[in-house]
Order: sequence, then C-alpha cells, then structure tokens
Amino acid sequence: MFVGILMGSDSDLPVMKDAAEVLEQLGVASEVHTLSAHRTPESVVEYVQKSEAAGYKVFICGAGGAAHLAGVVAAHTALPVIGVPLMSAKMGAAGLDALFATVQMPPGIPVATVGINGAKNAGILAAQIIGAGDETIRKNVIAYKEKMAKDIVAKDEKLQEMGFKKYLEDAGLI
Amino acid sequence: MFVGILMGSDSDLPVMKDAAEVLEQLGVASEVHTLSAHRTPESVVEYVQKSEAAGYKVFICGAGGAAHLAGVVAAHTALPVIGVPLMSAKMGAAGLDALFATVQMPPGIPVATVGINGAKNAGILAAQIIGAGDETIRKNVIAYKEKMAKDIVAKDEKLQEMGFKKYLEDAGLI
Amino acid sequence: MFVGILMGSDSDLPVMKDAAEVLEQLGVASEVHTLSAHRTPESVVEYVQKSEAAGYKVFICGAGGAAHLAGVVAAHTALPVIGVPLMSAKMGAAGLDALFATVQMPPGIPVATVGINGAKNAGILAAQIIGAGDETIRKNVIAYKEKMAKDIVAKDEKLQEMGFKKYLEDAGLI
Amino acid sequence: MFVGILMGSDSDLPVMKDAAEVLEQLGVASEVHTLSAHRTPESVVEYVQKSEAAGYKVFICGAGGAAHLAGVVAAHTALPVIGVPLMSAKMGAAGLDALFATVQMPPGIPVATVGINGAKNAGILAAQIIGAGDETIRKNVIAYKEKMAKDIVAKDEKLQEMGFKKYLEDAGLI
Amino acid sequence: MFVGILMGSDSDLPVMKDAAEVLEQLGVASEVHTLSAHRTPESVVEYVQKSEAAGYKVFICGAGGAAHLAGVVAAHTALPVIGVPLMSAKMGAAGLDALFATVQMPPGIPVATVGINGAKNAGILAAQIIGAGDETIRKNVIAYKEKMAKDIVAKDEKLQEMGFKKYLEDAGLI
Amino acid sequence: MFVGILMGSDSDLPVMKDAAEVLEQLGVASEVHTLSAHRTPESVVEYVQKSEAAGYKVFICGAGGAAHLAGVVAAHTALPVIGVPLMSAKMGAAGLDALFATVQMPPGIPVATVGINGAKNAGILAAQIIGAGDETIRKNVIAYKEKMAKDIVAKDEKLQEMGFKKYLEDAGLI
Amino acid sequence: MFVGILMGSDSDLPVMKDAAEVLEQLGVASEVHTLSAHRTPESVVEYVQKSEAAGYKVFICGAGGAAHLAGVVAAHTALPVIGVPLMSAKMGAAGLDALFATVQMPPGIPVATVGINGAKNAGILAAQIIGAGDETIRKNVIAYKEKMAKDIVAKDEKLQEMGFKKYLEDAGLI
Amino acid sequence: MFVGILMGSDSDLPVMKDAAEVLEQLGVASEVHTLSAHRTPESVVEYVQKSEAAGYKVFICGAGGAAHLAGVVAAHTALPVIGVPLMSAKMGAAGLDALFATVQMPPGIPVATVGINGAKNAGILAAQIIGAGDETIRKNVIAYKEKMAKDIVAKDEKLQEMGFKKYLEDAGLI
Repeated sequence: MFVGILMGSDSDLPVMKDAAEVLEQLGVASEVHTLSAHRTPESVVEYVQKSEAAGYKVFICGAGGAAHLAGVVAAHTALPVIGVPLMSAKMGAAGLDALFATVQMPPGIPVATVGINGAKNAGILAAQIIGAGDETIRKNVIAYKEKMAKDIVAKDEKLQEMGFKKYLEDAGLI
Repeated sequence: MFVGILMGSDSDLPVMKDAAEVLEQLGVASEVHTLSAHRTPESVVEYVQKSEAAGYKVFICGAGGAAHLAGVVAAHTALPVIGVPLMSAKMGAAGLDALFATVQMPPGIPVATVGINGAKNAGILAAQIIGAGDETIRKNVIAYKEKMAKDIVAKDEKLQEMGFKKYLEDAGLI
Repeated sequence: MFVGILMGSDSDLPVMKDAAEVLEQLGVASEVHTLSAHRTPESVVEYVQKSEAAGYKVFICGAGGAAHLAGVVAAHTALPVIGVPLMSAKMGAAGLDALFATVQMPPGIPVATVGINGAKNAGILAAQIIGAGDETIRKNVIAYKEKMAKDIVAKDEKLQEMGFKKYLEDAGLI
Repeated sequence: MFVGILMGSDSDLPVMKDAAEVLEQLGVASEVHTLSAHRTPESVVEYVQKSEAAGYKVFICGAGGAAHLAGVVAAHTALPVIGVPLMSAKMGAAGLDALFATVQMPPGIPVATVGINGAKNAGILAAQIIGAGDETIRKNVIAYKEKMAKDIVAKDEKLQEMGFKKYLEDAGLI
Repeated sequence: MFVGILMGSDSDLPVMKDAAEVLEQLGVASEVHTLSAHRTPESVVEYVQKSEAAGYKVFICGAGGAAHLAGVVAAHTALPVIGVPLMSAKMGAAGLDALFATVQMPPGIPVATVGINGAKNAGILAAQIIGAGDETIRKNVIAYKEKMAKDIVAKDEKLQEMGFKKYLEDAGLI
Repeated sequence: MFVGILMGSDSDLPVMKDAAEVLEQLGVASEVHTLSAHRTPESVVEYVQKSEAAGYKVFICGAGGAAHLAGVVAAHTALPVIGVPLMSAKMGAAGLDALFATVQMPPGIPVATVGINGAKNAGILAAQIIGAGDETIRKNVIAYKEKMAKDIVAKDEKLQEMGFKKYLEDAGLI
Repeated sequence: MFVGILMGSDSDLPVMKDAAEVLEQLGVASEVHTLSAHRTPESVVEYVQKSEAAGYKVFICGAGGAAHLAGVVAAHTALPVIGVPLMSAKMGAAGLDALFATVQMPPGIPVATVGINGAKNAGILAAQIIGAGDETIRKNVIAYKEKMAKDIVAKDEKLQEMGFKKYLEDAGLI
Repeated sequence: MFVGILMGSDSDLPVMKDAAEVLEQLGVASEVHTLSAHRTPESVVEYVQKSEAAGYKVFICGAGGAAHLAGVVAAHTALPVIGVPLMSAKMGAAGLDALFATVQMPPGIPVATVGINGAKNAGILAAQIIGAGDETIRKNVIAYKEKMAKDIVAKDEKLQEMGFKKYLEDAGLI
C-alpha cells in the first residue's frame, strides 16, 4: 500500500471516499482510516510513523472546521501531506474555516491543500506525486486526463448537434 | 505556578507578553514557553501532561495562520485551554485564518477563544477561570474591572471639562 | 446549581439544549433561561448579579446576529462567560456576524468563545473550567474524552474490517 | 442639546469628532461622552434614560470590534440610535467585526448603521432625523448638500480647464 | 401618509411587507412601491421629490445584490433614508453584497442601514425617527418594546416551569 | 455568428443558457460550447483564434471555483471577454472564489466581469458591446430596457390598486 | 472623443488616470470628469445622455465604498459601462465593498467590472470594446499585448543570464 | 535540474526566491523563470512540456490576484504542480483572491496549494514530493525539520533563563 487516507470522523467518508476511488482507478493502492487529531492524537502519530517506516509515499487528510488533522500529520512525517478542507453546513463560515486551517501552515511544515471538499483531486494529486518517481503511475495519470478531455469534447459535439435547448431537455437539466 | 502560556515562535512574544503581564497584576503566577505544535509536537504533549499533573489550572496558547497550537494542547488535557488567534500581516486573510483555526473546534475538544491578538483578555479570562474556584483571585478581577471603570469615568469627566476639541489637542490626538 | 445557560429567544433552544445535556452527562448542574440583552436588559443584569452572589461558577450565552448577550453578561460579572455564536440562515453572513460580535471583545472584558453553533463544546468547556478547581468534575471530563476516543477507534476497526464501500452502505451513508 | 455622541474609549475620538463637527455646521447641538457598554454599563443606561427624559432626539454610538455600545443604548431607549462601526487595525477583520456587531440587530431593536468609520455621515443622519420634524434643520441639510454639489462641479470645471495631468500635479497628487 | 417603502422588484415583497405591517401596528401610515434604481430611475427621483414636498418623513428602501436603491433615494432628498439589504441565494455572497452596497455610503449621503433582510427593524426605526418629533408615536414604540419584553419573560417562566426538554417537545422544536 | 459562449462543463448550462436566450431576444447570433481551460486547453485556444479570425465580436465565459476560463480566453484574443462567475454549492466560498478568479485579472488582460451567476447580464452586455458599433443592436437594447421599465411600472400600478396584502396573496407569494 | 471616464471625487484621480493614459497609448480619445452619483446625480444623468447622443462608445466609472456610479450610469444608457471598484483604506472591507457594489448588478443592467483599482484594465477593455467594431484600434490592442509579452520574455532572459540572486540585487529588490 | 519555479512578473521574485533558496538548502536543483499565464501563454505551455520531457519532477507557480498560472501549468502536465497565492496590497481582498484562484480547482486538475506568500513551504513541499521517491532528499528534509525543532528548543531555553521581559529587550522586540 502506498497512500494513507485519514479523516476525523466517519461522517466525512461520503466525501473522502472519492480519494480512494480515484486512486483505485489510477492503479494506486490506498487504505482508509478514521483517526482524529483531537480525540485520538496518539493513534494518529503512531499510524503516521509506522506507515512512513513501512514505505508509504503520501498521506491524504480530510477535516472540517478548525481542521488540524493534516497539520498534525505533517508535523510527524517528512512525506508529502495532502489536506482536504471539508465544509460543514452546520458550522457556518462556508468552508473557509477548514480551508484556512489547512492551507495557512507556518514555514517549515507545508500541507498540499486542494479545494473545499476536493477529495477526488486529493487522490489525483497523490497519484501525480507518486508518478513523479514512477513512470507507470504517471502514464495512468496522463491516460486519465486524456479520458477527461475526450468526455468534454464528446459532450461539446453532442451539444453542437442538438443545440443547447434540446441538450438541456435531453439531459433532464430543465 | 498556575497558568502555562505557550506560543509557537518568539516573534509572537511582543503580543503574547500581555497575557503574562495582566496575570501578574491579577496575582496569578504564570510561565511563558515557545513550543510549536508543528515543529516540536512531542515537547508540547510532554509539557502539557507534566503541567496538568503538577496542578496547573489553565493553558493559554497563541498562534497565527493555521493556528493549531491551542487545539493540540486541548487534545492532551482535561483543563480549560484559551486560544489567542494572532494576525500575520505577511500571510494575508486579516487574522481570520487564525480565528477560524482556533475557534471552530470539533465537538468534544473546545478551545476558549478570545479576539484576534487578544492576549490581555486571555490573561484576564484565565484569572476569571481560576477565580471561579478561588475567592482571592475573583476579588482581584473585580478590583481590576472597577479600576477600568474609574479610568473611563475620569476620562469622561476631563472630556466634559475641556470639550472634545481641547481634549484632542491636549492628548496629542490631532 | 453551577452553570447558567442563557439565550435571547426560545428559537435558540434546539441548538443550545446541547450545552445542558452534556453538562448533565458530566455531572454538572445547570439551568436554562431565555433572557435578551436587547429586549430585557434589566432582567439579564439582575439574573447575573443574583447568580454570582449565589455561587454560580460559569455562564453560557448563546446568541445570533449582532450577538451581544455574552458581552452584556461579561460586563456584569467577574466569573468566566462562554459565548456561543449562533448562525441564522435568514440573516445571511454565514454565522460570521455572531462569531465576530461574540469574540472580538475589547480589552478587559473577555468572552470565552466556542465555534459557531458549538453549544456542546460550551458545555464541555464549562465543565473543564469547574474541573480546574474540582477533581470529580475533571475526572468526568477525562472519562468523557476517553469514551470519545474509544468510539472513534471502534469505528476505525469496523471500517478496516468492512472496507469503506461496505461501511458506507451499512451506515446508510450512500 | 439634542444629540448625544457616545464612544467606548477616548482613542475613538479622532474619528468620532467628525460627528460633532458636522452637527455644529448643521446647527444641531450635541455633546460628546466616553462611556463603555462593557466597562461602565450602568453609566450608559443612566445617561440614556436621563437624556431621553431631558428631550434628546438621537444618540450616536461609535465602537470597534464586538461593538455593542449602539445595541446597549438601543435596548434602553425608544429614540433612534445611530451606530458607527470603527475599524481597529490591531484587531484584524478589516472592520467587518464592528459592522456586523452593529448592524445585525435582532427584530425589535434596530440600530441605524452607517459605514465603517462613517462618523461624519452619522452626524448628517442625525440632522436629517431631527430635520424630519424641524424645518430649519432640514433646510440646513439641503444647503449642506447643495454646497457639496457645488464643490464637485467646481472641481470638475477646474479639471476640464487644466486637463487631468496638470490637475494632478497642481493638487500634489502625483 | 408618512413613510414611503420602496423596493426594486415585487419578488422583494415577501420580506419587505414586514416593514409595512409593523408600521401599521405602531400607528404610522405608509405606502409600498416597486420602483427600480436601475430600471426606472426617473420614476424613483420623481417619487422622492413629490413625496418630500408632500410632507413624508422617512423612506425605507429594500434591495439586493449591488443594492443602489437607498443610495439613489438619499441622493435626492434631505429626509432620512433607511436601507434594507436583501439576501439573494441565487447571487451568492451571503448577503454581504447588499449590506456593503447599502451601508458604505460616501461622506455627505448617509443611509441608515439595518441588518440583512431586516425589514421589520426598518419599520420600527422609521417609527422611532418619527417618534423623535411626535410623542404619540414614541409612546407606541415604548409600548411595543414593553410587549416584546413581556413575551420573553412569559416564555422564560414557561421554560422554568416545564424544563427545557418538555418545552422543546411542547413547542414542536424537536 | 457574433458571440461565442463557452463553459467548462455541461453542468453549467442551466445557468449559462440565459446568455444565449437573451442574445436571441436582442437579435444577436451566438453559439454555445463546452470547452475547459484545464481539461481541453488546446481546444480553447484553437476555438478562440479561429473565431476571432472569423469575425466574432465578443466571448462570454462561465466557470466556477478557480474560474480560469475567461482569463485563458482573454490571454489569446484582442476581443472583449465577458466572465460569468458561477457559484458551486458543493465547493463552498459562496461564489466568491469564482468572482475573484474572474475579476482580479493582472494589468494588460482585462475580463469584463458580471455578477455571480449573471449569465443574462453577460448576454445583455455582449449586445451593448456590439451595439456600440451597430445601431440596430443598440436600438434593440434600448427597446429591451424600455420593456423592463414598463413591466415594473405595471407591477407597481397593480400593487397600488390591490394593496400589498392582496398582491402577495394573488401572486402566491404568501 | 469616444470614452467618458467618470469618478466621484478628485481623490480617485491618482488611480483613475491610468485609464486615460492607456487609452491614449491605444489611440482612443477620452475625457475625464468628476461627477458624483450621490452628490450631483442630475449632472451624471445629463452628461451620460448628452454623451451617448454625441456618439460616445463606452463609459468608465470609478468609485469606492457603496460604489453606485457605474450602476447609475448604466441605468441611463444602452452603451457598455465599465466599473472600476476603488479600495479605500479608511473605510475597511479590503475593497470588497466597492467590488460587490459594482459587479452584483440586477438582471437587465450589467456593469462590465474589472479588478479592484484596475483602472488600466478598464482602459484596455474600453479599447477592446471599440476594437470589436474598429480594426485600427483592435490592431493597437494586439500590438500592446505583443509589447507586454516581449517585456516579460526580455526580463526572463535577463533573469536566466544573471541568476535570481544577482537579478534581485541589480533591480534593488533586496 | 528537478524543480521549475515560475512566476508571472519579476515583482514576485522577492517572495518567490524563498522557494529556490530552501530547495538549495535541501539539495534539490531548481531554476527560476518569469512567464505569464496571461501575457505569454504559449511560452508557459512550451516550457512545461519541454521540462516534463526533460525529467523535471515538480513545478512551483506563484501568482497574485486572479492567479491562473498554477492552473494553466497543471492543465499541461501530469506532474504535481504547487501553487503559491501571492498577496497584492494594491488589489485588495487580503490575498483571498489569489488563494481561491489557486486552490479551488475543478475535479481532475489539482493544484497543491500552500499558504498565502508561502514560497518557502512550496520549496519544502517540492523536496518532500521528490523525497517520496528519493531517500537522500527525504533525509535532507528530516534533517531540516530536526534543525527547526532544535532552534525552537534553544530559544525556549534562553527564554526560561532570561525571563520574557529580558528576552524581549535583548531581542530588540520592545
């Protein structure tokens, strides 16, 4: 296994699962854990140190509000740590709280932050990081991006054919 | 000693010293440490556990940006933890980053947050917390607040006497 | 009774009840009142002064918008005051209005602010404050935190056993 | 006297003096006081009740941070209360804290809020309020606005005559 | 009639009607118009000038987004103008756009701004402004505020009697 | 054809279609494409260069989040480019992300930005731009604006006739 | 003359002059006026109507705070109106007030908004709009953009030659 | 060479040089270029494709305002791209514009974003990414972090020895 995906609560799983799924598509093994920077801090530290020793390459950490998980992980490893700020409708602040708490790290301890709720991009970024040193994975990323481009082009062709009014109806968008 | 004052860098000291100074005025002993949640995480944990065992009552933690120090301390103690969000002109975001990263804690691990750069209020709050169980300290807080009220009243009297134009001149405010 | 829980309107009760409930779990007595800083200011002052004289230890105040309740209470007591900023969907501003109006207090009159809608954390913080001077309550807080940690660990074990896809199905999260 | 101008600290006077000065120009008597919602709450209440009884027409209240002064005054009077949110560079938040804490009042207790640091506009608004029931003052407001319009027209004429390059040089703006 | 209530679109009426209703309760006559600063600017100017000449005392203007209506009205009258910033879910920005566009007026042209969607408070403020020069209306405002206070006290008594759990059930709040 | 309407994904079409529809009403031909600045960058460049050579007059680009599409188009053409910031509920930030990423362009490469989700206004602005050099289109814009004004006046007349209570009922707004 | 540049106060001239200067470089005639939406509304309307009749093609309007000037101009013309949000350090809000008040226009009355203080881009955008119907001006814009590109390439060549340390010294940047 | 550092203007160099300097300390070769996403888009694409083919591992891109550089680079490579949002005092928005424009990327094209002005952290993150596949560089990162920790511990020891008052004096911080 290469990528450890952590989140503070199983309520984050419906968003964070996107990271595991895209990694699977890109041929990168991963494992998913619920471990909290605030409620089980020792388990987090232990997990990170054990995983780095075992040859893991990247950590992905998702958290909301005063999102400290990615920073706590980054404090205990020399590996790259990707942070996913999660938005909590109940806590207000439009997701800016988690974004700031993840990205504005002090000098010396970076967190590679993706967009709010951007778990899929976290997975792709992890694959790109591994791909920087692994030609197979990099080729998987290239293929993934080519597939995305083709999908958009195909949609545009369909749009030109149908016109936007029929396209919207057809797609059930109006 | 009763109150541990922590900050991540000695560059925070010019703001955070206000906490130590007001505690001194209120008759509460304190000690000041630079310890970083991200750069010396083990030292933070060790300090907190040792201090709680030694009978400390409150921790005050000042940090800027993705301010995790108060949260990390709160994760390792059952004592009340006061967080002071510090503004960093260089990092943008008008201090909201540190405010969010300090106050928006997940259920179970509260941080008692004061205003941006509010180190003096952190000291007073620590004294109020100790004063909830210690009559002498509570009386010191009462006296402190009465002194503040008197100062304002005195200024208002001077203002009525002088008129606002002369008052401004006299105080060098214009 | 030890903790007074105040809010400006009974529409705040569905959020603020969390404070009373967690205090009950932590063995701390509390009482709940609707009293408004703006509509019944004299009642607030009277209540606070009477309660401090009667030996109360902490006040918890929840309010939304231009949330003044915690500040008004803090102006009339030397006890620690915890502020809970409440978000109002109807008034816009994503809860930042109440957060700012609660936390950005002037020097001399701190409010111990928790996160937006963070009533449960307000209750735990009140218990921590009382626990700073009362070993039984502090032990209750420690036990509460250990229980939280165990719950997360148990969830993680179940997650490892099931894998995240089955876990999500099983929990009805997808 | 008709308008009471309050502020929490004499450090607010360099901004708040603009209200008194423009009222003077508009023929409205006013008086200036430093009285704090948090440090001298009883004095504020006493002042407001005494002034309303004495026939005052409007209150202007300037405060920064968790700006409660206007709201506290509004809680104790049926007269219109104008709030001036003051920006504090030291407390961060770009003045939004004071704006929110002044304007987002709960139903029943409005504060007539002007812009951040808008003390001059507070004075003019107070004159407009008095002018709604007093023809002389309303005419003074009309004359004041006509004077403003003339000043701009004169500047534009000078600008057309000089061209913008010479105008900037002449005014020392570059 | 004394108060003119303007809004840019009839879609604003469900919020803005609160101003007319509370004015009715307070004994102040008002009329409601849809007139747009951007789509029917001449009608706005004409209406304002005619109404000021006819002895109107206050204008209330509700608008969302780049809310210019209150400012445009204020540009054409010496009477006090109350602005109600309206939140538009579709346009994003959490209502801050309308708040800023209403409150941050340049020196010389104040708008008395109330909270986001605060139409009821706009009505009460208009009554307070008229009440500053009209004893009957001021007494109506005092009675209104006393009624509000009594309602809260009654709710608190019911809450003490029932306890918060039963109260919540009884009110259908859980 | 004169106006090219681009968006990064067909999920933007339900908002962006407003631009095409209003252009149709204003007598301006347009075409709609899904092309992504990030997923199909070469297609974007190719399309823009081909369209400018073919005599297109304006581009309209809608995008959400880190909305780069308008900027990328502007980098490859000397024609005016209109940007429509789109709000994404899932990505948080209340639409400010797309607004900033569209409007805050560096010196030399402007994007004519309209409001969040303001696709209809983008269409009208495109017609105004074409109308600056084409009398027929300018007259269509004038007619469109006169129609809007008449609609509001008609609504206001209905409102005066019915009164606001009946109007609300009649329109099903309450 | 083709472009009318308006601003509410001569204090905006040091920023707004950039629009006039870049238009001059691009071969587009312009004129600069100080006219205020709030203080001289009739003059604004008169100027806009006269200028549209005289064949002007575009208006550029700069304003700060509750920036209504561009919207007021747009309400009275069918020509494209470019809005420049100006930041005022004294009024707080980091320029967001003017940005929102300029860009968030209601359906029907667009303002082509450029970045905060983006007067130079407003000038370029005006030239692009005129260039959409005038080949000479469009070629001037193309030449201007090529010149910009060359300048950057030249700087990059110098940077490669010198290395970044020497480059910084040489440019006096450290 | 392994890391390409790009920025849109040489005025970004005083901040961005920190990335190059820390990479040098960590034993990673890098090169610095000024290339603009908006002014020299073809050069950016060409550079990225050439560098990926030549075996570069990571790109670091710094930009302010509507910061598109990192996104444009990410659109043309399968390598990890690090974005540094730069704050521009002149353009307002407190650096949030660049942060949003860098981090809120659409699904499929992640940018690894660091804090506002966080060029040093960008360099360390690049080294961590390379270190994930290169033991020597990972050890350099570990050594760098140990050095940071020692520096803080040393400062804390000095602080304990001196006391905070003498420490502040000694460091010239008061």
